Amino acid sequence: MSEKNLTDQADTAQASSTVDSYSEVKFKASLAGTAARRMASLSTDEKNAALLAMADALIVEADSLIEANREDLERGRAGGTSESLLDRLMLNAERITSISDALKLVADLPDPTGRVLETIERPNGLHIEKVSVPLGVIGIIYEARPNVTVDAAALCLKTGNAVVLRGGSAALSTNKRIAEVLRAALAQTSLPPDALQVIEDASRSSVDEMLKLNGLLDVIIPRGGRSLINNVVQNATVPVIETGAGVCHTYLDASADPSMAEAIALNAKIQRPSVCNSMETLILHEDFANRELSSLAGQLLERNVELRGDERTRELVPEANPASEEDYGTEYNDYILNIKIVGGLDEAIAHIDKFGTKHSECIVTEDEKNAVRFLNEVDAAAVYHNASTRFTDGFEFGFGAEIGISTQKLHARGPMGLPALTSSKYRIYGTGQIRQ
Amino acid sequence: MSEKNLTDQADTAQASSTVDSYSEVKFKASLAGTAARRMASLSTDEKNAALLAMADALIVEADSLIEANREDLERGRAGGTSESLLDRLMLNAERITSISDALKLVADLPDPTGRVLETIERPNGLHIEKVSVPLGVIGIIYEARPNVTVDAAALCLKTGNAVVLRGGSAALSTNKRIAEVLRAALAQTSLPPDALQVIEDASRSSVDEMLKLNGLLDVIIPRGGRSLINNVVQNATVPVIETGAGVCHTYLDASADPSMAEAIALNAKIQRPSVCNSMETLILHEDFANRELSSLAGQLLERNVELRGDERTRELVPEANPASEEDYGTEYNDYILNIKIVGGLDEAIAHIDKFGTKHSECIVTEDEKNAVRFLNEVDAAAVYHNASTRFTDGFEFGFGAEIGISTQKLHARGPMGLPALTSSKYRIYGTGQIRQ
Repeated sequence: MSEKNLTDQADTAQASSTVDSYSEVKFKASLAGTAARRMASLSTDEKNAALLAMADALIVEADSLIEANREDLERGRAGGTSESLLDRLMLNAERITSISDALKLVADLPDPTGRVLETIERPNGLHIEKVSVPLGVIGIIYEARPNVTVDAAALCLKTGNAVVLRGGSAALSTNKRIAEVLRAALAQTSLPPDALQVIEDASRSSVDEMLKLNGLLDVIIPRGGRSLINNVVQNATVPVIETGAGVCHTYLDASADPSMAEAIALNAKIQRPSVCNSMETLILHEDFANRELSSLAGQLLERNVELRGDERTRELVPEANPASEEDYGTEYNDYILNIKIVGGLDEAIAHIDKFGTKHSECIVTEDEKNAVRFLNEVDAAAVYHNASTRFTDGFEFGFGAEIGISTQKLHARGPMGLPALTSSKYRIYGTGQIRQ
Repeated sequence: MSEKNLTDQADTAQASSTVDSYSEVKFKASLAGTAARRMASLSTDEKNAALLAMADALIVEADSLIEANREDLERGRAGGTSESLLDRLMLNAERITSISDALKLVADLPDPTGRVLETIERPNGLHIEKVSVPLGVIGIIYEARPNVTVDAAALCLKTGNAVVLRGGSAALSTNKRIAEVLRAALAQTSLPPDALQVIEDASRSSVDEMLKLNGLLDVIIPRGGRSLINNVVQNATVPVIETGAGVCHTYLDASADPSMAEAIALNAKIQRPSVCNSMETLILHEDFANRELSSLAGQLLERNVELRGDERTRELVPEANPASEEDYGTEYNDYILNIKIVGGLDEAIAHIDKFGTKHSECIVTEDEKNAVRFLNEVDAAAVYHNASTRFTDGFEFGFGAEIGISTQKLHARGPMGLPALTSSKYRIYGTGQIRQ
């Protein structure tokens, strides 16, 4: 297929939003599928060149992106969108530069596809290679922030995948313009522009349709709040990588170093309460609590953290409100902290087991045996000894990118770098072998 | 929890089938979850000892297993079950010995859990280890053959998982007795008997309930025919590993060695037509077809294979029936073969792309360049050059076991050995690090 044809097809795809939404989602996913087959045989250099062309195009087209973004902001303001959401939606020259720079960093990362992961020599002479390959077509369903549009596209294209992006309606004008700019940039490279599709149907039905697109989408990754993720997990027949929910605990053991414990607890709660790897519940060994809790609680209260605790906590910290069972299971993402006092490690692990979401869990202790038991027995994507749970993050792990933090056990668990967007295939080399 | 308590709980679990089915599935999955946490910290030796105890118990209890199996056979015969299905259901001393021997082989395999897969040293001093861990609780939904009950249990327990087995109603008495025998054997070892659960509710509702058991089941693996697998894929909210469907092709290129091509094609079709890695469609380059098809077709007809072909095929092979579009997309698992003649490699790949199920695809050619293109461009779990597709099998790949053949791209693709039943977790070792 020639460049010319691909660009024509791309135009057709963009025009399809005038027909019904069923056609748009299915049609664009099909175009992405055709592009995916071509993507799989591109070289790393070709993919990187395309990412750099995308980065440049965002800078060149900054004014038109800001103009499109203004439409979204005005519509949002008229509709009563909160200032904090409008701020997340807003693009300016500085933000566009930082989005463009992030694209260049993705280009610099190693390509995880085309690697021989395993070789097997069989007694019958068969030579078997397991090779990393792109997943195919990835669907991303996400909310307002337009930087996700660029970021998700870059990570998918870098790994040789095609991508179908379904962003929130609040950012629709911005996302459409981003797609135009990036697809035009791709048309100047050897990447098929159809590898990048943005769904313009902002109704719920386009999401519903994506969730059932088995055969056209290889995986769906939801990025956003709990209700978005739950909708995807509950209704998708396409395989899903679940990301997000974090009811994370920090357990301060009897032998914890008091100043380390304090620093880690404050960091896990306060450094950025709105994210999934921040602490929702502080668990303390009773001995440690008797010695240290009132001072630690004082510091949390000083920083405007509302405390909710069990009976023993409230004896030591009169300012604490009672914590209900529901509180212990809640991801606040806010300046609220549950406190639980326990008799020892077993009780701490049992509490985490009951209320945790298997995201990130920490023990602060000087007792090596307790640390080993905690790291082995707590079932979570990331288990920490003497460090803040806030480190559960692709960049902090040194991956150079983050697709999200998987909270499921299949395929990828914890922070996902580029290899999470690959699959594998077996190549078998024979000389006429048949099975007996 | 003491051995005694576990055995009591096990009895309670078995008794729960007298209450409603909702309780049975949920209750047994919860017991499995508790057992899974204990399973995760058992040593390889403990797990192997349990597998050997299970193998011995099957031999000791062979008579009672055959007796229970007789009930199933009689019920099946009275209900008009076909002789071939009854044969698959039937247990005798010889089959029990072979099932028991298979258990011992699983004990001999290396344990894929507890391995450090990756280590990362961060500039801030954090030491990060990615370690392989059990998945947790695995649900298996399958059909008649009682050997699957033992086999699936063994593979799950070996990898430190708990398992909830929901077999077909035709084998219910056999499966119940197998569960009793194996759980009693486990009670004599350090493995919690609750790690092995057999659902006795043979109604559809127990399957429906398992499919939605998020939080209690970590993954569901369906093993069986297309309708069983489709039901699971379409209705599960628990993550699924899809196995099974194979519309596999063999492409005989212009330069194929005639005798190798003939041997591979006959083997792929005839050696065992009922399985997913057998060939459903033979694609031939027109030059090769003109020279060789009538002789090859003669051999297939001689072996009672019904041939269905396109127009050009029927010119060369008058005995062939017409092949419809639907035929080209059908997994016959029978002595029926579609034939398609193409102008070259591109057309062959396009046909596979349109009708294949991404399972196993083969090119027979002496042209190295065409072989490389086929292996790179055909999107399938296993792609072959000059060997029969019948080798797509965990044992033939040297894995020593096979959970199934994954036809999805997430988590595992192609034949699944023991590592497919593991996940990973990150263990992070700090010295008080907090995030800035």
